[in-house]
Amino acid sequence: MPPALVWKAWTTPDLLKEWFAPKPFETPHCEIDLRPGGIFRTVMRSPDGNEFDGAGCYLEVIPNERLVWTSALAPGYRPQAGEMPFTAVIELQPTGSGGTRYRAVAMHRTPEDNKQHADMGFVEGWGAALDQLVALVKTL
Amino acid sequence: MPPALVWKAWTTPDLLKEWFAPKPFETPHCEIDLRPGGIFRTVMRSPDGNEFDGAGCYLEVIPNERLVWTSALAPGYRPQAGEMPFTAVIELQPTGSGGTRYRAVAMHRTPEDNKQHADMGFVEGWGAALDQLVALVKTL
Repeated sequence: MPPALVWKAWTTPDLLKEWFAPKPFETPHCEIDLRPGGIFRTVMRSPDGNEFDGAGCYLEVIPNERLVWTSALAPGYRPQAGEMPFTAVIELQPTGSGGTRYRAVAMHRTPEDNKQHADMGFVEGWGAALDQLVALVKTL
Repeated sequence: MPPALVWKAWTTPDLLKEWFAPKPFETPHCEIDLRPGGIFRTVMRSPDGNEFDGAGCYLEVIPNERLVWTSALAPGYRPQAGEMPFTAVIELQPTGSGGTRYRAVAMHRTPEDNKQHADMGFVEGWGAALDQLVALVKTL
């Protein structure tokens, strides 16, 4: 799976909705304005129907290579309140065999925030979502 | 004064130190890595010797046109704690007469943060610093 397809799954709302939330969570809504300062909004829904609506903004957009977004800033870069804000850096590199070397880093404000997020299942959640991303990309 | 000189005063540490803090405050130290994610650090010193050391990061760098930086993110885009984080957008446009139309916007998290910062003299401080910037640029 080449970087271009992984990029597409990360930046196309109708595709992202298919994989972004680790099941049985769902992503009923996604809004993307793919430019620095542009909105990255997802609504996640838990099995019992609670919705988590968050809008951050993109910081760097280098197609098929590097995507950076943060929940610490609202669209247009305005700082926003919120618990455990983090910045995500997604890096894609082509491998010699036509695949993608995938690297995702989440940077938190403090080690305490990082631990709290991890204790909530953040790491496993991203891992499960990545499995879903891979399964989706295989169908593209 | 053309935009290029105003840009220079905003992005050259030794120049910025001359004007950035409204007198009698001073800016004994400034560190600039002029690229998205790069450090923008200033140390301000009050007349009674207290120092205020803050490092944010740049978000957009369009030479002579647009500079965006935030105190909500540390260098490398990591979210950071801090009271009243804000994002600053500096826009420069050439006027027909060889001058610069200067626009500076500070965006806070909430109206309450905005008011609290204003009550501390933020608006007057930026105004006084701008006067110092203009005086400095005239000497370049």
